[in-house]
Amino acid sequence: MTDISPPHEVSHLARVELLSPKPQETLDFFTRLLGMYVTGQDGGSVYLRGYEDPYPWSLKITESRTAGMGHAALRTSSADALERRVGSLRSGNVEGTWAEDEFGFGKTFSYQSPDGHDLALVWEADTYQAPPELRSKILTRASKKPLQGIPIKRIDHLNLMASDVTAVKESFERHLGFKTTERVVDGATEIGAWMTANILGHEVACMRDATGGRGKLHHVAFYYGNQQHNADAAEMFREHDIRIESGPDRHGITQGQFLYVFEPGGNRIELFGEPGYLHLQPDAETKTWLMSDFDTALAIGGAKLPMETYFTYGTPSPLSLEDHEAQFSAPAAQPAPAAV
Amino acid sequence: MTDISPPHEVSHLARVELLSPKPQETLDFFTRLLGMYVTGQDGGSVYLRGYEDPYPWSLKITESRTAGMGHAALRTSSADALERRVGSLRSGNVEGTWAEDEFGFGKTFSYQSPDGHDLALVWEADTYQAPPELRSKILTRASKKPLQGIPIKRIDHLNLMASDVTAVKESFERHLGFKTTERVVDGATEIGAWMTANILGHEVACMRDATGGRGKLHHVAFYYGNQQHNADAAEMFREHDIRIESGPDRHGITQGQFLYVFEPGGNRIELFGEPGYLHLQPDAETKTWLMSDFDTALAIGGAKLPMETYFTYGTPSPLSLEDHEAQFSAPAAQPAPAAV
Amino acid sequence: MTDISPPHEVSHLARVELLSPKPQETLDFFTRLLGMYVTGQDGGSVYLRGYEDPYPWSLKITESRTAGMGHAALRTSSADALERRVGSLRSGNVEGTWAEDEFGFGKTFSYQSPDGHDLALVWEADTYQAPPELRSKILTRASKKPLQGIPIKRIDHLNLMASDVTAVKESFERHLGFKTTERVVDGATEIGAWMTANILGHEVACMRDATGGRGKLHHVAFYYGNQQHNADAAEMFREHDIRIESGPDRHGITQGQFLYVFEPGGNRIELFGEPGYLHLQPDAETKTWLMSDFDTALAIGGAKLPMETYFTYGTPSPLSLEDHEAQFSAPAAQPAPAAV
Amino acid sequence: MTDISPPHEVSHLARVELLSPKPQETLDFFTRLLGMYVTGQDGGSVYLRGYEDPYPWSLKITESRTAGMGHAALRTSSADALERRVGSLRSGNVEGTWAEDEFGFGKTFSYQSPDGHDLALVWEADTYQAPPELRSKILTRASKKPLQGIPIKRIDHLNLMASDVTAVKESFERHLGFKTTERVVDGATEIGAWMTANILGHEVACMRDATGGRGKLHHVAFYYGNQQHNADAAEMFREHDIRIESGPDRHGITQGQFLYVFEPGGNRIELFGEPGYLHLQPDAETKTWLMSDFDTALAIGGAKLPMETYFTYGTPSPLSLEDHEAQFSAPAAQPAPAAV
Repeated sequence: MTDISPPHEVSHLARVELLSPKPQETLDFFTRLLGMYVTGQDGGSVYLRGYEDPYPWSLKITESRTAGMGHAALRTSSADALERRVGSLRSGNVEGTWAEDEFGFGKTFSYQSPDGHDLALVWEADTYQAPPELRSKILTRASKKPLQGIPIKRIDHLNLMASDVTAVKESFERHLGFKTTERVVDGATEIGAWMTANILGHEVACMRDATGGRGKLHHVAFYYGNQQHNADAAEMFREHDIRIESGPDRHGITQGQFLYVFEPGGNRIELFGEPGYLHLQPDAETKTWLMSDFDTALAIGGAKLPMETYFTYGTPSPLSLEDHEAQFSAPAAQPAPAAV
Repeated sequence: MTDISPPHEVSHLARVELLSPKPQETLDFFTRLLGMYVTGQDGGSVYLRGYEDPYPWSLKITESRTAGMGHAALRTSSADALERRVGSLRSGNVEGTWAEDEFGFGKTFSYQSPDGHDLALVWEADTYQAPPELRSKILTRASKKPLQGIPIKRIDHLNLMASDVTAVKESFERHLGFKTTERVVDGATEIGAWMTANILGHEVACMRDATGGRGKLHHVAFYYGNQQHNADAAEMFREHDIRIESGPDRHGITQGQFLYVFEPGGNRIELFGEPGYLHLQPDAETKTWLMSDFDTALAIGGAKLPMETYFTYGTPSPLSLEDHEAQFSAPAAQPAPAAV
Repeated sequence: MTDISPPHEVSHLARVELLSPKPQETLDFFTRLLGMYVTGQDGGSVYLRGYEDPYPWSLKITESRTAGMGHAALRTSSADALERRVGSLRSGNVEGTWAEDEFGFGKTFSYQSPDGHDLALVWEADTYQAPPELRSKILTRASKKPLQGIPIKRIDHLNLMASDVTAVKESFERHLGFKTTERVVDGATEIGAWMTANILGHEVACMRDATGGRGKLHHVAFYYGNQQHNADAAEMFREHDIRIESGPDRHGITQGQFLYVFEPGGNRIELFGEPGYLHLQPDAETKTWLMSDFDTALAIGGAKLPMETYFTYGTPSPLSLEDHEAQFSAPAAQPAPAAV
Repeated sequence: MTDISPPHEVSHLARVELLSPKPQETLDFFTRLLGMYVTGQDGGSVYLRGYEDPYPWSLKITESRTAGMGHAALRTSSADALERRVGSLRSGNVEGTWAEDEFGFGKTFSYQSPDGHDLALVWEADTYQAPPELRSKILTRASKKPLQGIPIKRIDHLNLMASDVTAVKESFERHLGFKTTERVVDGATEIGAWMTANILGHEVACMRDATGGRGKLHHVAFYYGNQQHNADAAEMFREHDIRIESGPDRHGITQGQFLYVFEPGGNRIELFGEPGYLHLQPDAETKTWLMSDFDTALAIGGAKLPMETYFTYGTPSPLSLEDHEAQFSAPAAQPAPAAV
């Protein structure tokens, strides 16, 4: 364990790029329903931010043949920390490249997780400056809460599907100084890990792809900070034909409140209610869930996380969500109510 | 339709008797977890009330070999209305008997629904008078909110399982002046009906027993009036080994917020959050849900109401909940996560 | 007390007309912030409805020199009930006039309360039919919840300021069959009364005008049915320069959750959270609050209802809200924090 | 600014000792109403913890002639950090003493803030181990949520009243590495500062004592993490004769949800709802509120924070709360409603 990096070198998840085969519908989802602001456009990409995101954008939507994650970038805690993290990655034989052509951010180091996810580290970032008409009276709020849909505040966290959870987890611990707050083991196999760079339950999580796939996105989460908004959002999604996978409910893991839906492009999105347990105790041990506690780990209430999607579907996916689900479903067994 | 009784003859559901093979555990459930007050005891029965129930009791727990509903009593809107309702029932060849030996209530007419449920009508009822130490500063509150568990306010409604929903519904309409606010039809068969005597979505509902059984209790609901309390209660039940069937979520039908659990004696209990849609419009038509809308009808969020219990299990049940569930479950199909 | 009308003759508050000297700002308040739909326009008036209002409109905004209530109309429970109520009013020497030229409603009987408020009774009303794009999947919902602002569901209740509370109260009891659920007395004087035609805590309330004024509007309330929405609305009003008078908090009287603001035209508007106590018990006595309990009566939490506006300002008002407040305020007494 | 310590040397507020002239009533307040567990007793002191506090206690109640704060202890992020922080304090001529006789914690460095508040730093702390019957199924939860009252989760933050806010603030920045997230200035005078050692809005705040007093406690806050619990607690306090000063509402500063009450011993206690804004951005500037924004700074809704208590009363206080309030109140100006 001597290889673990010092803590506090990474501050938080700053931005994610989502790929969508239906970019206009995906954009409508995030703007009309989730009240995100459009702040820029560039070729086939649109840049968006929630009303409390501190930078010019936290979400980039890019047209693509398939759904998936373009990249996710973590912001370090200083310019030096960025250099040290890149140094650590390279010392671990993780290749990567520097670039600096993203709107609102400076030079960025791009690399891949052990499972092939496209990740990045960045320090230089513009602080978003709202125009006068969007300035909030609440000084910690980077812009007014919009009057559109049920607006999310900001990006929250990232969940990666991986063929090898432990390898991904160890990369975050070793090179980025993340701490694993909770994990799930099935016998000798680690099937989930929740990792943080601060006191949150997680900025990044990794879960085992039950199909054995590599490098997929499980979900990106956006923050409400409030249970009622998850309930309101569920009703909104139901009315507007957005498919709800599970929730609103609360995970035992992290105690975070979840609502999982699929945006029209096919990526799974989580709406995140109350933030769950805050890890203030500096020497708390990693909590390990066993399969015998898996029910509580997944949901404190009665919500089900379905095998045919939640544990098997990530993006990019070779099949559409509907086809995937059909393939991974149990043989039909439940007769229609009146037929019994 | 000329046979429908005038409205407003029945005021509300006043009390329910639950039978339990584990009376002490059932009592603990309602007192320790749900904060009900014990107000009396009589032989193998205990009387309880929620802190806003207006009468000396709304729930009677009676020891019995099997779970089930002993009886449910509706309070009429006047002494005359009671006579008129009994007259209507008798004119419809519904037999029944008068008695007046229940604690806190006067003479009561007991009869059976067309499906065999034990129902009763009563007018005479004592208004609960709290002792000084339990008096609330809030004048509409019959007693202080207890500091125990997550206290329910009062009894809310009753849901009956029936072999013939239409017969039960018509009995409530014809003899008691209930109005059907919503119903579900599967082709030509009515598989659910929600009925009210006032502006609530329902005091009494009836759902088809998918096993063809007769005269069972589906659930009794207790009122929180608040979504957060449903969420808090779910966590409490999880911690205290009370099995959650589904929720918290919101039905499309009635817009009521639900959380279904099984009390230790085996009866299904609903915790009822926000009251849902209030039927203020006097000439609103009955809303009819089709099977094509059944998903939204059951839950606005992602909650599932499982065929192997929700549509098939009522009390009394020939099988334990676990055995019932096993028998009505689909053949095992979902591999454990790590096994895929 | 033999003169009290039978209950259930009136169903509910169907619509209110608000007068505004700033009709465009008032319209913006109800559409942009509170998500009401515009359904019609006629001369200097605009018609609006909340997404669960059952009729073509519940609110009419009419340009006028001063703020105030144009009229409020209650819907009876039948055509015959309308005739009976008019008969009762006329037998009590209450004059009135018939008209039938309002959009979406049929013939209407207009009269004045003993204090001079313009009231109306109506039976004939069109049920609102949403165009396909606004149809909700939730069958009890007359139209989709808008994606604009924090939408109210429907009109809820009316609160009248009066020089003589008892006279207004007795008129509702005697001629309309309302029941007084709660009242406040100051010695021998009735200073507030909450009245209902069903099981709600109130459709109509009346409070004493501490300035001795006659026939003013205290407030019209719109329904959220949910505490969080009151909190969200408070934040929205703060950001959008709508003055908050008090709340969010919960009254002891009715247990209703309140948030009071002034719409730009000067009328006080209440946003109504959870509905509070439901009067299911048919023979419950009227609850009487004394001045010694007045603190709890007004607010269960720490909210203050200020004498210089809440108990003295109604519309129409001879002074602007700011001038009224200055005149009725205590002499300046609180030094600025740093000045002490 | 070269004198500011590195960040992350202090982890969080671990424990507070409250002095009470009514220790039994104070204990009842925290156990019966707020559901804290008693974990130890020693002479005139009782040790308590909330169900998610990670150590054997977070609150010590000690009998005393007057109310006030005995001491507050911050936990460092390591043993070395403790040595470094003590070194910094001593290099700044802050005297202090080492001791190690507190239940559940190791050696502790005690010192005084520039305004005379008794503070302490500690590293060694036992992790609380719940006995089997109190173990939670939720692994991040140190013990089961009690079924008593409306249980707080854990201690949250500390607010100190000071004659010189800037001096206290600079001590936290310089010696402990705290970051000031927000402050309020009145002209050239800093009248409030909110400081954190992590991403929370504050672990410690300091507000100017408008009476010019030194070294008092303004309040200790306990965490619900949920708005509804603040509302539920307000109702509980109202019923159980605990005086509510203000709330529930949300501050503009920190966006934290507040409810202020006075525990029976006279100390102000805050119940803390949603955690408010989380400071994820590492290079965010301190936000400065001006007196022109003070209304929004204090409360987003309509709550008032009264000059005669909130800005002038802290503990220890030479006067009882009632006498203090009378002395600092404006001359009586508001006539009783009916008297106008």
